[in-house]
Amino acid sequence: MRVGGRPLRTIWPAGDGRSVLIIDQTRLPHAFVTRRLESLADAADAIRRMQVRGAPLIGVTAAFGIWLQALADPSDAALAAGRAALLATRPTAVNLRFALDAMGEALRDVPPGERAGRARARAGELAEDDVAACQAIGRHGLPLLEAIHARSGRPVQVLTHCNAGWLAAVDWGTALAPVYLAHDRGIPVHVTVDETRPRNQGAALTAWELLQHGVPHTVVADNAGGHLMQRGRVDLCLVGSDRTTARGDVCNKIGTLLKALAAREYGVPFHVALPGSTIDWTLEDGVAQIPIEERDGDELRRITGRSARGEVLSVEILPSASGVANPAFDVTPAHLVTGLVTERGRCAASREGLLSLYPERRGASARGA
Amino acid sequence: MRVGGRPLRTIWPAGDGRSVLIIDQTRLPHAFVTRRLESLADAADAIRRMQVRGAPLIGVTAAFGIWLQALADPSDAALAAGRAALLATRPTAVNLRFALDAMGEALRDVPPGERAGRARARAGELAEDDVAACQAIGRHGLPLLEAIHARSGRPVQVLTHCNAGWLAAVDWGTALAPVYLAHDRGIPVHVTVDETRPRNQGAALTAWELLQHGVPHTVVADNAGGHLMQRGRVDLCLVGSDRTTARGDVCNKIGTLLKALAAREYGVPFHVALPGSTIDWTLEDGVAQIPIEERDGDELRRITGRSARGEVLSVEILPSASGVANPAFDVTPAHLVTGLVTERGRCAASREGLLSLYPERRGASARGA
Repeated sequence: MRVGGRPLRTIWPAGDGRSVLIIDQTRLPHAFVTRRLESLADAADAIRRMQVRGAPLIGVTAAFGIWLQALADPSDAALAAGRAALLATRPTAVNLRFALDAMGEALRDVPPGERAGRARARAGELAEDDVAACQAIGRHGLPLLEAIHARSGRPVQVLTHCNAGWLAAVDWGTALAPVYLAHDRGIPVHVTVDETRPRNQGAALTAWELLQHGVPHTVVADNAGGHLMQRGRVDLCLVGSDRTTARGDVCNKIGTLLKALAAREYGVPFHVALPGSTIDWTLEDGVAQIPIEERDGDELRRITGRSARGEVLSVEILPSASGVANPAFDVTPAHLVTGLVTERGRCAASREGLLSLYPERRGASARGA
Repeated sequence: MRVGGRPLRTIWPAGDGRSVLIIDQTRLPHAFVTRRLESLADAADAIRRMQVRGAPLIGVTAAFGIWLQALADPSDAALAAGRAALLATRPTAVNLRFALDAMGEALRDVPPGERAGRARARAGELAEDDVAACQAIGRHGLPLLEAIHARSGRPVQVLTHCNAGWLAAVDWGTALAPVYLAHDRGIPVHVTVDETRPRNQGAALTAWELLQHGVPHTVVADNAGGHLMQRGRVDLCLVGSDRTTARGDVCNKIGTLLKALAAREYGVPFHVALPGSTIDWTLEDGVAQIPIEERDGDELRRITGRSARGEVLSVEILPSASGVANPAFDVTPAHLVTGLVTERGRCAASREGLLSLYPERRGASARGA
C-alpha cells in the first residue's frame, strides 16, 4: 500500500544483503520510523516489543530472523536456538510456528554453507505467499462491496474493528484487502474505524494506513457501533481473525463479539476475512476450547499520545488503586458470522463451508489433526 | 458517600452563607479539588465546563445558582437573566429545566427582599429530594442483588456503564445506589466498570467513587463486556438513563445498547435505574424521536491523564488528519430492558409498567403532554 504516495510493505530486505527493514508500528500514528534488523535477536526484539504485530507479519518477520541467524551462524545448534528464541516472543501466535516450521523444513537437508541463501529465498517466498493470499482475499471480498454499491449507488459504509489491514500483514491486509481493492477500482467506500481499546490499533494503525492510502474513514469510540448499525449507517462489517475453529467460530480482538451481536440485531452482514493459516482444524467450539489471553492491565491503565509540546508520552488514566482486567480477545460464535472470506473464496461460517474450500482437511479434521 | 473516610456530597452550601462548594469532577481521578461557587456566573461556568455533570447534579447546581443570583440581585430581571444563562449551558438536559422551573415557581410571589432566603431553602429542598429519590432507588433495587447473592452465595457481579453513581447526583447515585446499599449492608458485591470512551466517566469517576467508598471493582475496556457475559462473569447489568420514553426506551451514554444486546444474548438481567424526572412522557419511540447529540471530536482525539512526572495533561491519540464521529448517547429499546428501577419501585420497561408507578400520568401521556 502507499505511504506518502510511494508503495511500501511492512517488511523488506535491505539493499545491503545483510539486514531487513521494518516499520516500527509502536511509533504510529505519531511518527513514521523504520528499524533495521541486523540479527535474529533484533527480529525477536521487534516481535516482542510489537514493533511488528499481526499474525501474518509476525510469521514473516520470524522467517527473516532465521535468515539473519543463518548469515551469522548457520550451524544446526545456532538455528535451533534461534527458533526457540523466536517462538518464545509470542507463544500463542499460530503463524509464528507455521513460519518457523516452513523455514526448518527448507533448511533441513541443506549444507550449512548454503543455508543463508536458501533461508533468504524461503523467507522471501513466505512474504510473497502472504501478499498473494491477502490479494486473493481482496478479490474474493470485493463482490460484497460491489453488490452493496450497485444496489445503493452510495459509498459503501464498512465498519471494521482493530487492525486487519496491511500493517498486520506484509501488504494489503485481510479485512481491509477488499476495501483497498474497491477503492483502487473506483468504488466509493468509507470505513468506520473502531478505536479498539485498550491498545487502540484502530485509532493508531487502521486510521493511519487508510489515511496514507487515501481511503475515506472516520474513527469512532468502540461504543458507537451499535448506535450506527441501529441507525442504518453501516452496510457491512468486515473484521479479521486471530484463530478460526473448524466449524467457523472466530477468535478476534476483544469487542468483535459486541459488533457481531449488533450486526445480527440490525441486519448488517458480518464477514470475517482470514488466510487459511489462521484456521485451527483441531478446534471446534471456540468458546469452550480457546483460552483467552489476559494481558497486562497497564495497556488499559496508560495511554500513549502526543502532547501539545509535540512530545510522545504515556499518561495514566485510571485511579492507581483500582483493579483492571484486560482480556485481549473474544470468540464470536459461527452463528453470528454471515460469511468467511479466505484466499480460496467465500464460504459459510460452518464446518461444511470451510471444508468446501479446504477439502484436503475433510479426513484430517475428523481425526482432530 | 465517603471520600477518604468522611461522608461527602457532590454539592453543599458553604458555612459562610454566601457560596456553594462543589467537587471539580474534571480533576478526578487525579486530584480531589473542590471549587467555591460565589455567583450565578460561577455556577453556569461549572456546569458548562462539566466540573459538575450528571442530570440530577446539574439541576441542583442550577438551583443553587439562582440562590447566588438572588443574593446579588433579587430583581425579576436579574433572575430571568440568570435563568436564561443557566439554561444555555447544557441545552438538552431535562433536569436543568425542571430545577429552574421549580425555582421560578418558588420565587414568583415572593417580595425581592425575601427571595434569597426562599431560594436557599428551595434549592436545599431540591438537593434533599434528589438524595431521597436516589435512596429510594437504592432500596427498590437492593432486592435484585439480594436475590442473586441468596441464590449463588458468591459476590454479586454487577456490570455498569458510564457514571450513574453519586458523582452524577447529590448523593448515592441512581444505578449505583443499590450497589452502595448492598455493600453497606454486608452483601458482597463486585462492580465491573466500563471505561466508557470517549470521556472515560467509568474509568475516571465510577472507579474513583467506588474506590473511595471501598466497593470492590475492576475497570475493563468497553469492548470486554460481551466476552464477560458470554463467560458467565456478570450477574446483573445496572445502568442509568439520561432520558426515558413513556414506553420505556432508554437513552443513555453511547455503548449502553451494545451491553443490552449482549445481556439479552447471554441471559443476563439488564436493569435501568432512573428518577421519575428523567421520564419524558411526551416521547414514545426513542429511536425515532430522540435526536442524538454529536459532541466535539476532540473528546475522542485527545485524552487527559497523569504523566510519569505527575503532570496532568492531554495527549492526542489519533492521526490529526483522520475524521472523527462522536455520538454521545444511544437508545436501548424497551424490549432489551429487563426492568426499570425508580424512586417509586420497580416496573417493566413498558407503558403499562411505567403507568403502574406513575398513575397520575395515565391521562396526560395519552395526550402527549
